[in-house]
Amino acid sequence: MSRFFTKTLEELEPYVPGEQPQNQKYIKLNTNENPYPPSPWVKEVLTADEADKLRLYSDPTCKTLVDALSARYDLEPDQIMLGNGSDEVLAFAVRAFCDENTPLVFPDVTYGCYPIWASLNRISTKIIPLEEDFSIDPTKYYNAGGTIVLANPNAPTGMALTRDQMEGILKNNQENVVIVDEAYVDFGAESCLNLIPYYDNLVVVQTFSKSHNLAGARVGYAMAQASLIEDLNRIKFSFHPYNINRLSMLAAAASIQDVAYFRNCCEKIIRTREETAKTLKEMGLEVLPSKANFLFARTDRILGADLYKSLKARGVLVRHFGKPRTAPYVRITIGTDEEMKAFLNILGDLLRGQGA
Amino acid sequence: MSRFFTKTLEELEPYVPGEQPQNQKYIKLNTNENPYPPSPWVKEVLTADEADKLRLYSDPTCKTLVDALSARYDLEPDQIMLGNGSDEVLAFAVRAFCDENTPLVFPDVTYGCYPIWASLNRISTKIIPLEEDFSIDPTKYYNAGGTIVLANPNAPTGMALTRDQMEGILKNNQENVVIVDEAYVDFGAESCLNLIPYYDNLVVVQTFSKSHNLAGARVGYAMAQASLIEDLNRIKFSFHPYNINRLSMLAAAASIQDVAYFRNCCEKIIRTREETAKTLKEMGLEVLPSKANFLFARTDRILGADLYKSLKARGVLVRHFGKPRTAPYVRITIGTDEEMKAFLNILGDLLRGQGA
Repeated sequence: MSRFFTKTLEELEPYVPGEQPQNQKYIKLNTNENPYPPSPWVKEVLTADEADKLRLYSDPTCKTLVDALSARYDLEPDQIMLGNGSDEVLAFAVRAFCDENTPLVFPDVTYGCYPIWASLNRISTKIIPLEEDFSIDPTKYYNAGGTIVLANPNAPTGMALTRDQMEGILKNNQENVVIVDEAYVDFGAESCLNLIPYYDNLVVVQTFSKSHNLAGARVGYAMAQASLIEDLNRIKFSFHPYNINRLSMLAAAASIQDVAYFRNCCEKIIRTREETAKTLKEMGLEVLPSKANFLFARTDRILGADLYKSLKARGVLVRHFGKPRTAPYVRITIGTDEEMKAFLNILGDLLRGQGA
Repeated sequence: MSRFFTKTLEELEPYVPGEQPQNQKYIKLNTNENPYPPSPWVKEVLTADEADKLRLYSDPTCKTLVDALSARYDLEPDQIMLGNGSDEVLAFAVRAFCDENTPLVFPDVTYGCYPIWASLNRISTKIIPLEEDFSIDPTKYYNAGGTIVLANPNAPTGMALTRDQMEGILKNNQENVVIVDEAYVDFGAESCLNLIPYYDNLVVVQTFSKSHNLAGARVGYAMAQASLIEDLNRIKFSFHPYNINRLSMLAAAASIQDVAYFRNCCEKIIRTREETAKTLKEMGLEVLPSKANFLFARTDRILGADLYKSLKARGVLVRHFGKPRTAPYVRITIGTDEEMKAFLNILGDLLRGQGA
């Protein structure tokens, strides 16, 4: 920290993203990327002519992509806002709907950026612990007295609330916004999308990073009633009106239109997840019931941190989170069948080496 | 504004970007884009293989591009930080170096986002009026008592301070950061880049949007001593670690390496600017002395707002800013020779129609 850094943010602890090795070959199961390339329609729209058009600014209203999302989800264009990844969308929502008197409310075990955005904006937080089994008791969020953000499915557990449970939370927080972070929803959980017409306090956030195979394009979006989208746009246009670049906008619009490809990828990942979970349990691991494209698993035979290190030494990257409740676990992204088979073989060898 | 929007930002006035018509054909001289396409090297790196790799996150450290900039500007990699456009870099700098006790200091006529970022972060401002002739008196920024941000060349005037004048400001603000926004520097002004080794309070911000023909890719960067870059990264990693997408990173790295193409485009724009300024003066307009890729010009014969409207009706988009000091003027981006010739013909007809 330099001597010029604002004293008001001295406590800020930045997010530590999962390793993104650029040169070495790993079986990369650590950052919840999709193992399949994006729809072939994506490369068709990234033409030499579009490369030349990079001299021009992108459309700050993101009309092409908003229209594509509007058609896909049967919403009005003024019910959609685009961000540079869902991280930016969520950070804007925290800025728009929280302040000294309106804390950000979220579970103790969830996406690590929520408390960081609160710190960055000097907003207080209210943290509600998960149950013993890592589930969320929705009634604990009734009349929460702040803006709620819930990842559904939750990260890094993969466990989801039902739409009915989410609706209970919406009904019992009519004076506050409820942000549902649906980054992983397409892998088997229930979306809150069709509750939007009924709740003026609901913001649904989704992303192209996982189920649309476009983590590297950085596009996320909020869907809500027009008045909330107007609020989010107010923050966006005060921060960076041109927040989505031209090529990512084209890639995302192509991807959202190729529904068959999207469904096929999601189905494959769900199938691979279920098979992987079954095998892990047969190997004696404890695996949380996941509706996401990852599994959160542990074993008594080896500490989470050691399992992470041993796997890395054998060429497999998974993610380990060092906080007390998550430390026994590792988070394993679902790759291709071949990748998971290789991972399971390596894990088997490793556990046998532990005297299992 | 919804009933949920934070009361603390009720006064926030978002930025109004220049028009970005998507469907209609204008001579587009309104948002300071480069009239020439990016280096041909850009399209070579945007391959089908890279489209497939969009399934993977981008490198949060932006190593490839940081290394390319490091080689180009003879800086260490830890002296460079990348942002989603220089807007994001500047917004991060405001967040890092200002607070209730450290206002943001800037001229009354300058880039419109500076006061907005201050509002968004609830930071106070100290506004120092330009001189009568729109120049900046550097001594008025001595011991300014806050974090200074100066666009150099300034926008929308195009007028620049010399490096020596900037150094005077740096020397006389040793307890505060001086951010030099060099978005337009490559069109003839003096960069503060080579002052970085001598001033631990200097942040130089540049962009690929103008002189590197990549407005639509959204890439900007800060250059400073490592301790200040560490501060900026602390904000970046607390807001959005993956802030640059994969394709923009590739495009920018290719562009920064094609130095000959860059120089040639800049020289052409400078030449066209000088010729256009000469003709405008011959036509009786008052034109500020610009070192940027635009001209700020006025005439007694027609109000700035009316000139903007009349030009638009005739197929030419320029930019008009409605604040009292800027209202008589329009800002004219430098296009190709052909575009400027067409613009000057239309303007000539229009002024003759005003009874000139």
